[in-house]
Amino acid sequence: MAASDVPQRIYHFGGGTADGDHTLKALLGGKGANLGAMARLGLPVPPGFTIATPLCLQYHAEGALAPGLMDDVRVSIGRIEELTGKTFGAGPDPLLVSVRSGAAISMPGMMDTVLNLGMNPAVSAALGALAGDRFAKDAERRFIQMFGNVVDGIEGRRFEEVLETVKHERGASEDTDLDAAGLDDVVTRYRTVYRAATGRDFPDAPWEQLERAVEAVFASWENPRARTYRRLNRIGDDLGTAVTVQAMVFGNLGDDCGTGVGFTRDPSTGAKLFYGEYLANAQGEDVVAGIRTPLPIRAARAGAMKLAGRSLEELHPHIHAELMRVAATLEAHYGDVQDLEFTFERDTLYLLQTRTAKRTGQAWLMTQVALVDEGVIEPNTALARIPADSLAQVLAPSLDASAASSPPLARGLNAGPGAATGMIAFTADDAERRAQLGQAVILVRDDTTPEDIHGMHAARGILTARGGLTSHAAVVARGMGKPCIVGCGALHINAHEERLTIEGAGVTLGPGDTITIDGSTGAMMLGEQAIATSEVLQVLVDRTLAPRESPTSQAFARVMEWADAARTMGVRTNADTPADAAVARSLGAEGIGLCRTEHMFFDADRIFAMRRMILAETEDERKAALAAIEPMQVNDFKGLFRVMRGMTVTIRTLDPPLHEFLPHDESDIAELARHTRRSVDAVRARVHALRESNPMLGHRGCRLGLHFPEITRMQARAIIRAALDVALEGVDVHPEIMIPLVGNRRELDLQKREVSGEIEALFKAAGRRVPVQIGTMIEIPRAALTAAEIAEHADFFSFGTNDLTQMTLGVSRDDSGAFLPDYVAKGIYKVDPFVSIDQTGVGRLMRIAVEEGRGRRPELKVGICGEHGGDPESVRFCYGLGLDYVSCSPYRVPVARLAAAQAALED
Amino acid sequence: MAASDVPQRIYHFGGGTADGDHTLKALLGGKGANLGAMARLGLPVPPGFTIATPLCLQYHAEGALAPGLMDDVRVSIGRIEELTGKTFGAGPDPLLVSVRSGAAISMPGMMDTVLNLGMNPAVSAALGALAGDRFAKDAERRFIQMFGNVVDGIEGRRFEEVLETVKHERGASEDTDLDAAGLDDVVTRYRTVYRAATGRDFPDAPWEQLERAVEAVFASWENPRARTYRRLNRIGDDLGTAVTVQAMVFGNLGDDCGTGVGFTRDPSTGAKLFYGEYLANAQGEDVVAGIRTPLPIRAARAGAMKLAGRSLEELHPHIHAELMRVAATLEAHYGDVQDLEFTFERDTLYLLQTRTAKRTGQAWLMTQVALVDEGVIEPNTALARIPADSLAQVLAPSLDASAASSPPLARGLNAGPGAATGMIAFTADDAERRAQLGQAVILVRDDTTPEDIHGMHAARGILTARGGLTSHAAVVARGMGKPCIVGCGALHINAHEERLTIEGAGVTLGPGDTITIDGSTGAMMLGEQAIATSEVLQVLVDRTLAPRESPTSQAFARVMEWADAARTMGVRTNADTPADAAVARSLGAEGIGLCRTEHMFFDADRIFAMRRMILAETEDERKAALAAIEPMQVNDFKGLFRVMRGMTVTIRTLDPPLHEFLPHDESDIAELARHTRRSVDAVRARVHALRESNPMLGHRGCRLGLHFPEITRMQARAIIRAALDVALEGVDVHPEIMIPLVGNRRELDLQKREVSGEIEALFKAAGRRVPVQIGTMIEIPRAALTAAEIAEHADFFSFGTNDLTQMTLGVSRDDSGAFLPDYVAKGIYKVDPFVSIDQTGVGRLMRIAVEEGRGRRPELKVGICGEHGGDPESVRFCYGLGLDYVSCSPYRVPVARLAAAQAALED
Repeated sequence: MAASDVPQRIYHFGGGTADGDHTLKALLGGKGANLGAMARLGLPVPPGFTIATPLCLQYHAEGALAPGLMDDVRVSIGRIEELTGKTFGAGPDPLLVSVRSGAAISMPGMMDTVLNLGMNPAVSAALGALAGDRFAKDAERRFIQMFGNVVDGIEGRRFEEVLETVKHERGASEDTDLDAAGLDDVVTRYRTVYRAATGRDFPDAPWEQLERAVEAVFASWENPRARTYRRLNRIGDDLGTAVTVQAMVFGNLGDDCGTGVGFTRDPSTGAKLFYGEYLANAQGEDVVAGIRTPLPIRAARAGAMKLAGRSLEELHPHIHAELMRVAATLEAHYGDVQDLEFTFERDTLYLLQTRTAKRTGQAWLMTQVALVDEGVIEPNTALARIPADSLAQVLAPSLDASAASSPPLARGLNAGPGAATGMIAFTADDAERRAQLGQAVILVRDDTTPEDIHGMHAARGILTARGGLTSHAAVVARGMGKPCIVGCGALHINAHEERLTIEGAGVTLGPGDTITIDGSTGAMMLGEQAIATSEVLQVLVDRTLAPRESPTSQAFARVMEWADAARTMGVRTNADTPADAAVARSLGAEGIGLCRTEHMFFDADRIFAMRRMILAETEDERKAALAAIEPMQVNDFKGLFRVMRGMTVTIRTLDPPLHEFLPHDESDIAELARHTRRSVDAVRARVHALRESNPMLGHRGCRLGLHFPEITRMQARAIIRAALDVALEGVDVHPEIMIPLVGNRRELDLQKREVSGEIEALFKAAGRRVPVQIGTMIEIPRAALTAAEIAEHADFFSFGTNDLTQMTLGVSRDDSGAFLPDYVAKGIYKVDPFVSIDQTGVGRLMRIAVEEGRGRRPELKVGICGEHGGDPESVRFCYGLGLDYVSCSPYRVPVARLAAAQAALED
Repeated sequence: MAASDVPQRIYHFGGGTADGDHTLKALLGGKGANLGAMARLGLPVPPGFTIATPLCLQYHAEGALAPGLMDDVRVSIGRIEELTGKTFGAGPDPLLVSVRSGAAISMPGMMDTVLNLGMNPAVSAALGALAGDRFAKDAERRFIQMFGNVVDGIEGRRFEEVLETVKHERGASEDTDLDAAGLDDVVTRYRTVYRAATGRDFPDAPWEQLERAVEAVFASWENPRARTYRRLNRIGDDLGTAVTVQAMVFGNLGDDCGTGVGFTRDPSTGAKLFYGEYLANAQGEDVVAGIRTPLPIRAARAGAMKLAGRSLEELHPHIHAELMRVAATLEAHYGDVQDLEFTFERDTLYLLQTRTAKRTGQAWLMTQVALVDEGVIEPNTALARIPADSLAQVLAPSLDASAASSPPLARGLNAGPGAATGMIAFTADDAERRAQLGQAVILVRDDTTPEDIHGMHAARGILTARGGLTSHAAVVARGMGKPCIVGCGALHINAHEERLTIEGAGVTLGPGDTITIDGSTGAMMLGEQAIATSEVLQVLVDRTLAPRESPTSQAFARVMEWADAARTMGVRTNADTPADAAVARSLGAEGIGLCRTEHMFFDADRIFAMRRMILAETEDERKAALAAIEPMQVNDFKGLFRVMRGMTVTIRTLDPPLHEFLPHDESDIAELARHTRRSVDAVRARVHALRESNPMLGHRGCRLGLHFPEITRMQARAIIRAALDVALEGVDVHPEIMIPLVGNRRELDLQKREVSGEIEALFKAAGRRVPVQIGTMIEIPRAALTAAEIAEHADFFSFGTNDLTQMTLGVSRDDSGAFLPDYVAKGIYKVDPFVSIDQTGVGRLMRIAVEEGRGRRPELKVGICGEHGGDPESVRFCYGLGLDYVSCSPYRVPVARLAAAQAALED
């Protein structure tokens, strides 16, 4: 949009009116728009104006400010002068202004700000006469430092060094110890620094200062850190920033002045209590800098903090009352909790900023439910606002605030939310053994494999040195709802010698040491820390707390109820055991979208039968081994069907390469040889023969089922036997049999033939039937590309987006740690494609599969069971594709329910 | 097509006329159509008729013969009776008929035939009176055996056992030793076998015999071996077979009778000489059975074989003359070499079949060029006929016919055409060492890796126990033009102890033993065998033979000339060295489509610099190591540019995972540690750290270039420096720089920025430029799916169909041996997708990439450099997509030129 198309280039606010309000964020940036809104609400806002974003784009397109813009700015400054009765660049009562950036989407700290602009020696003198020399000189030195840094790019360090030198020379330990003379000395030396750095004298002409500051703010839109931030946060480069110029007010003119920040409700708990802090006789940047400890706003809180009498409420009751009135007005206007900044100058309150507050998951639930109850918003508005991911936080165990502030020993990727504390276990067996003895353990490994499942179950949390957010450890941990950190590169693990060294920390730990991990942040700490179980889980899953004892769980239940009413897409879960299924069901799962049968084979009593089957040299031998497994599988499925009564249970036939089931260390190989009456060499040779260069693309999935149809047949029999049995108990069963890794219609045809044959034989023998469907995963690009053909024999499709992403992008999840983080940092992928679906590439294949699959078979049911099924952005994308359901790990089910509701509401 | 839509259900032939001819193959099958054609040409064909293929489809659709069909058949038999003067099912001169299948596309031996039908005791007696009892009884027992087997499914073994018993009882060692009484005994016992097997008496009613035989032939279209054959040969299931019923003639009525087969020209050399053999007093099946040794047709050949006086020409000059007349007529009619079957009964010649002859590559060239010179066909007709793959055979070294008949010790996949003989070398180093001493060696490995390249170069041929047709060994061997067998599962190789055991053969070999491999057939033989180098290579590449000394090379040159005139698509080569490039150029390559730079790093003097670079811990260290490599690369490229003067040379930047360059055994690791002044532990740790779960999808291709931009920059500099240098020598250079493994436009953007920066700097420093283009491989599904975006910054695309196939199908080429052969056998993929492009899946992505890439950038150049570039079917597909060129290994260039011409001619 060229500037000439903009109806207005400059928008004024202040004096009880404004040209724009919060609806014009795109034009005025969040800051400018909200200042306009506050002015229109009659709230005390220092007057000012905002130069609209199109002028920023024009500046970058033309390399110069729009013609005539500064003439308009002069007129607008004149308006501020009128409203304040002050004069820009001159005494007796000089007007100083702030010049700030502000984009439509908040980019905190990414762009530049200049305060106290309009300052020069004459103005400083006038200001000294009015408010004291120390104040004037302090304002002057702050301005020179900020302008030099922001506008001329002089390193802040060079000013800081001067300040330190002067303090040292004058025996001052704090900035505030410097008197007016000392600060005057600083100002003089700052001017020298400026001249040395730029070769020019510091510009004392106020209009030159203003023009250059406006240019600098526009220019900062394209600085490298802003560009990076936009890329990481998927913010368009074509939005531009607005510039807001506003009369300065001062919180540091004396004890009747001050500055603070606050939330209209508690952003941590959501309680309806103003929450904030302030500093008397201070500027806003002092609060941020943390030099002095701020004081509470409310008297009650001051009491609780043993600071009775020092709250804003007690010391400045008039300002406090005004602030409470403003808070109420703002909440009523915005209909949501606000995060605001204020300053009071000589007992007059000014609002400098307001924005919708960030908050914890719990606070999101509590505030939105309260706002609905207060009649401020509708339930659907609440639903649309709550970040779906925040529900994961509500379900995770959490660290005490005090523990969270312990310095981390190392950091990794936050792979499974929640915190856990326990002693280090270096092997799955050790974890299991010690857990049985009642110890809390954290399993610490380079990475995990399916052989570690029992140890992961036994451990309180999992910590790995390698792997990404969708590594085995991460996926399984999330599925189990366990806190997990992966890819913690600083760990050097010697499992054999049970020794963990942490690079950089100079610490070596052993199995007797206790650590704490926070899977929500990726931080690993030394020692035991207090951990709190999620209240919602205590109510819904553990049933150790009654709903009435937990307002959070009540709010959770109500939000989920609204979400279920709003959404149209189903939410299932990925669960392999009755226990997992029960958790998921209590969290609202409407079926099982993926039951991985292979996990069932890793139990100690089964792995042997599995290995015997793999080593079998004849079909008869293989059948005998399978016959031993079959009754166990029947029991597995009966358990699942009972828990999921009335709901669909989708069971995937055997998927992983056989190599994963075989032992890899010599003693296990020897034991297997003994048990199967084979030579150690023969077993070792078989293990070796099954090793693959790229197992992900190897002999697995339906390729196994085609090679060993007796495995598929056994599994089909076990599913149907279990279904027939529990149906006799009166359980309503809906099994679905899902064939993995199909890339060619004939693979499905052939596997379906095997499955159907067994099913019909069992139905005939039983003299009754149960409803059953047969479908396939869509996880190979070719399957998506030939979906029409495949749909002819499929009752349903389920997108396996983990594998589909690996193959479509040519990226091995397990190996991507070497380059994918860098790729995301470089903006090659805006987000880890294993976390959120790559909509351009993988998404295109999904769209082809849905459209062409349903084109051939309109009644085709389509879902997703990859990890992405629990990612809100991906859930939204799946809704857009018209999927029937998403399926995710049990603890992500509430997230998916909310995300599905949001997608439906957006539609 | 329903039978009612067919203008005619039965087509007659014989008596100098016919209802149909060779243009009606779809309706009459090859056999019936050609019999019609021969009848129309006035050639002596026993009269008969053909029931058209739609009746077969109707039979399968309705489960019964079409209503009234047998009435029509009776009328048609009547017509044969008229023409022959014989009576069906009755004396005194009974008519016997053959009932044969015949599909539009030849399916040799796949379907069934019944001879001597119309036989029963009365007919046998009449026949005995006419031609002797022995003949009659022999015909009768043959009929019962064949009818019982084909129509009633009685195992042939059961009849053979009876025959053997009778022979034993009567002291007869051969069938021919049995007299009429003995054969009568056989007939009686055959009838008992029939009754025992079917529970019914043998049907003596001729019309019943005929009806059941027609049904059996129709039914045989759907027998399992026919279905499998069709799937393997991509023949549609909806063609159906025709049934041809024809009067029997007998070559076994006495010494004035006989039967034979012949080619109108030599199918081995292509010489214009009738080539064939015959047996006097014998039936056709006796020739096939090989009980008696057939004699030559021509007198000259009989002389050469020390069988003077026994040829057909000498013993039956009248028949021979007639046969030569027939051969000339058929060649003139069909315009190509014919393969025909004949019988002479009482000095009268009958033609029973003619079809276009199968022949060797050399014969294809020689016959087609001769036919053009004779004015029989146009060059474009010759081009369309020569199977493109047959040229690979012409270029390969070949075994002597005698050696080819040695029994193979083991069989593997025919991965690189040609034969080689030499002593076994178990390691690449040993192969190189012994080759330098002048020994001929065959490299025998479980599989090969890039570290084995020097040994593969040194060896005469390569034999591996593992891998498929596109394994490393296969690809590299074909590139080098070396004979190669892969996936020879019977080999058990203990390289450490230098021992090769061959399963099933009970043979153990060592480095002193000589073996011979025939990479054209996959057979491995013991001992040395004579090997002949291709004449064409001797002329074109080795220049050890003048063109005038080799008619084959002259024919080759002319066919290539015609092909180049006919084709529109370019043919380049994949070559990494000047030597390979020179070979390819002499075989007609028009540029290099893929130069893999990594092979350059495996030379002994470079691998160390490469390893030093990989171990580098700082950018400076890495740059120093690269600086050592750069001048070597400059030299490599100069050599290539000189050989390929005037042509485009596409150079791919570093592609394989770094792990491939590192040493894997302890002594090499120790040596590297010593040379780089690092601890062995540190080097081992680095080797371990670079190991990947799925290296194919790991840190490779442009992912390396993005991680270590200095590698890409070094390679770009080396390419441009070399180009500038040789341009000064007056060489016309056209380098193209190709970025591998791009899946996202930004990867190409970033790599292109690095490359362009170096290029421009060098051009500026040199004060001159060379033409250069920058493009990318399309080898990741996502690249194809986002081709429009990627095309914005690409001058060209080159399909890497090896990787694209791996990822699109989710199949690791290296691991596919465990299931892909079975997949092809089951018809899941009609052909190995690594041999011929999977047009449905991979092809769809290619189409998307071409259409959308050119949609965005119309001048985009598109080629293919995967192994498929040398596969005729894939070349045809690429032509259809509108590619600008295909690129293949040097020895496949002629194949690709011909295939490209054929594609253009078909268009």
